[in-house]
Amino acid sequence: MSRLIESLAARTDRMRSSEIRDILKSITEDVITFAGGMPDPNTFPSDEELNEIFEFIRSVKSKAFQYGITEGLPELREALAKFMSKFGIKASWEEIIVTSGSQQAIEITGRIFIDQRNIIVVELPTYLAAVQAYNIYKPIYVGVPMDDEGMKTDILEEELKRQINLGRKPKLIYTIPTCQNPTGISMSMDRRKHLLEIASKYDLYIVEDDPYGYITFTDKEYRRLKAMDSEGRVIYISTFSKIFAPGIRVGWAVAAKEVIKYMGLAKQALDICGAYLSHYIAYYAINSGMIERRIPMIKRTYKEKRDVMLKALEDYMPPNIEWTRPIGGMFIFLWLPEFINTKTLLFRTLYHYKVAYVPGRSFFVDGSGWNTIRLSFSYPPKDKITEGIRRLSLAIKEAMAIGMKKFKSYKLMS
Amino acid sequence: MSRLIESLAARTDRMRSSEIRDILKSITEDVITFAGGMPDPNTFPSDEELNEIFEFIRSVKSKAFQYGITEGLPELREALAKFMSKFGIKASWEEIIVTSGSQQAIEITGRIFIDQRNIIVVELPTYLAAVQAYNIYKPIYVGVPMDDEGMKTDILEEELKRQINLGRKPKLIYTIPTCQNPTGISMSMDRRKHLLEIASKYDLYIVEDDPYGYITFTDKEYRRLKAMDSEGRVIYISTFSKIFAPGIRVGWAVAAKEVIKYMGLAKQALDICGAYLSHYIAYYAINSGMIERRIPMIKRTYKEKRDVMLKALEDYMPPNIEWTRPIGGMFIFLWLPEFINTKTLLFRTLYHYKVAYVPGRSFFVDGSGWNTIRLSFSYPPKDKITEGIRRLSLAIKEAMAIGMKKFKSYKLMS
Repeated sequence: MSRLIESLAARTDRMRSSEIRDILKSITEDVITFAGGMPDPNTFPSDEELNEIFEFIRSVKSKAFQYGITEGLPELREALAKFMSKFGIKASWEEIIVTSGSQQAIEITGRIFIDQRNIIVVELPTYLAAVQAYNIYKPIYVGVPMDDEGMKTDILEEELKRQINLGRKPKLIYTIPTCQNPTGISMSMDRRKHLLEIASKYDLYIVEDDPYGYITFTDKEYRRLKAMDSEGRVIYISTFSKIFAPGIRVGWAVAAKEVIKYMGLAKQALDICGAYLSHYIAYYAINSGMIERRIPMIKRTYKEKRDVMLKALEDYMPPNIEWTRPIGGMFIFLWLPEFINTKTLLFRTLYHYKVAYVPGRSFFVDGSGWNTIRLSFSYPPKDKITEGIRRLSLAIKEAMAIGMKKFKSYKLMS
Repeated sequence: MSRLIESLAARTDRMRSSEIRDILKSITEDVITFAGGMPDPNTFPSDEELNEIFEFIRSVKSKAFQYGITEGLPELREALAKFMSKFGIKASWEEIIVTSGSQQAIEITGRIFIDQRNIIVVELPTYLAAVQAYNIYKPIYVGVPMDDEGMKTDILEEELKRQINLGRKPKLIYTIPTCQNPTGISMSMDRRKHLLEIASKYDLYIVEDDPYGYITFTDKEYRRLKAMDSEGRVIYISTFSKIFAPGIRVGWAVAAKEVIKYMGLAKQALDICGAYLSHYIAYYAINSGMIERRIPMIKRTYKEKRDVMLKALEDYMPPNIEWTRPIGGMFIFLWLPEFINTKTLLFRTLYHYKVAYVPGRSFFVDGSGWNTIRLSFSYPPKDKITEGIRRLSLAIKEAMAIGMKKFKSYKLMS
C-alpha cells in the first residue's frame, strides 16, 4: 500500500488542508474563539418555527424524500427569484441553480470556467475556501490590494494589462463586495461600477459571492453587482447559512440561462441533485416570509456583537494596531506591526491567553499578510467578546514588548 | 457575451449532458416509465417514523442547524461502523466519511486518484454517472465485458498487461459488484477473489460502489470486496438512498484512514461540510434500528416488482431477446437483436407506445451496446409494470418486423 499512499501524499499541492484548521482543532472549552465564521445559534429557527417547518414537510410527504432535479426544486427557485427582486436582482427561476451551500456554487464556477493557467483575480486578502476550490483547476491568481472602499480597481486594470502582455488569459474575477470575508470591507459604489466596466472591457466573468449582503447594519445602499449587470457577466452566489441556518446546506447561484445550463451539467457529476428535504425547508422558510421576518433579529444580533467587539478593540488595543469597521457580516480584520507574525503569535495566544483567531496570511494569495488577524464576532456571547479582546490585547502587547528583533527571527523560521 | 458562452460550449467534451436525460425530460403523465432508478415512495418513512425523526431533531436542536465537520457527524460514522460490521465490514468511525449521496464519494475518488491519462477500469456496461464524474480528470477508460458472474477478470488481467505495455498507468477499478447498475448482475465469489488478487498484483485501488447490496432477495452470500480487503485497497461506497430515502442525500465511503484524510481535504473544496440536519436524520434512522426494521419491507417491495417484471418479460417478449435475472437491486438489462438500435426505438416507444426506458449504449465506455435496454422495476406500481412490458414487447416486435435493413440505416444515421 505504501506506493499508493505516497502517490496521494504527492497531491498535497493540489489539496492542502488549512494548517490553521489543524491548529484550531485543538481548541478546548476554556478558549474564547473568534476563529470560525459560525452563525450564532440564537439566530436559528425557534421551536415554533421548527414546528411550522415540520408541519409543511409532513404535507409535502414523499416529494421531499425523493430524488430531485439537478438544478434544484423549481418552487424554491421561483421563491428565490421573488426574494431577490426585493434586493434589485431580476432573474427568472431558470436563471437560478440551488447548490450545496455557496461553496458548491463556487466550486462549479471553477469547474466550468477555469482552464489551466487562466488568470483568476481575487482580493488581497480573499476567502480561503474559494481559492481551495479553484486550485484543482490550476489557475494563476492575481491578488489586487484593497482599501476602505474595497478592491483597488485602478490597480486591477494595470494588472490585467500586465498579465495579457505576459500572454496569459484573464478569465474571471472572484469578489465578495459586501462585508468581505476576511476583512469585513464593503466595496464602494464607484468601485463597483468601475469593476463592471473593466469586466466588460476585458471580457471577464465576475463571481459575486454575497453571503453577508442580507445582514448589513446600514441604510447606505450597496447595490449588488448582479443588480447592475447589463451584460450577463456576473454569477451571483449566496446562501441560506447566514439568513436561516447552515445545517440545511442550501446555497444558490444566479447567472445567464446558458451559464446555469453548464452549472447544472457540472453539478450532475458532483452529486446528481441536492437534498430535496433541505430544498423544501428553504422553500417554506423563504416563501412563507419566515426569512424576511427573521432578518431584522439576525441583523440586531450581529450589530450588537460588532459594536461590542469594536468598543473592546478601542478600549484595550495598544497603539499602532489598525482594524476595519464593517457595516455588517461577521468579521473584523486587524493589522499588527509588521514585525509580528500572527501565526507564531497564535500558539502563545491559544495556549497561554486562551483566545483563538485566524492568522490572516492564508487569505493572501501572494503570501503576504503575516501580520494580520481575522476576528469573527458572530459566534461568542457578548461578554466573551469583551473578555477575549482584552486577552488578545495582552498577547499583542506582550509580543510588541518582546520586540521587533525576536519576532523577525520567528518570521524567518515560519 | 458571445465569446464567453462559446468558450463554455467548447467544454461539452468535458461535461456532456446525457442526451437520454434530455429525451426523458419530455415524459408525460400517460407514459409508463422504466427509465429512472427512483425508489418506490412507499418505501419512504411513514408518518409515524417521520414524527419520531422530527422529535429527535427537536431534541438535538441547534446542533442540527450549525456547520458540521467536513468528514461528517461523528455519531453517524460510529453508527455506520456498527451497522456495516453486521455485513462483514470492519471499520472504525475514522475510516468513514459521510458524503452528499454516493455520487459525491465517487467524484472524490476521481479527484484524489486520477491523473490525466491514468487507466480506469470499468465494467462493460457501467454506471453512467461514475464515468461523468471521472471525465473531468481525463482518464482513459478500459471497459471489461461481463457475463452472469460479473466482470470477466481473466480479460481484465490481459487488458492491464496490454495497457502497461502501452506505457499507461492503471490506477483504479470502479465496480458495482452486487446488483449492478445497469445490468442487475452480481459478481460471483470466485471473481471477487480474483479481482482482489489482480488489484494486489498490479497495485490498484478498487472503488466498490454498493448502493444495492442491502436490498438483495437471496440468502446466497455475496461478500463485499471491502469485507475481504486485507490490504486497504478498497474504497467502499454506499448510500441511504435505497435503504431510507434519497431526499436527505446522504452517502458514505469506507477506506483506509489515510485515504479518508485526502477525501476530507477534497470534500472541503466541494462543499466544506454536508447538511448536518440530514446527518442527524440518518444517524437517528440507523442508530434507532429504524433502518434495519425497514429493510425487510423494502426487499419485499422490490422482490415482488422484480418478479412481476420477469414474469411479464417471459409472457410477452418475442424470441431472441435476452435479459438478466437480478438477485436484488432495481434493474433488469435486455439485449435485443443486433440490428435494433434502442435509441432510435425509444422515440417510437415513447411517443407511440407510451413506455420509457434507458437505451443501454451510454453505459458502455467503448461505444457498443446500442442494442441494449435498461429497465428499472423500482418505481412503477405492479400493474403498470406488466402493462409497460406488454407495450414494450409490441414496440420490439414491430421493430423486429420492420426488419434488419431499415434499422441498419437508422444505426448509421444515429
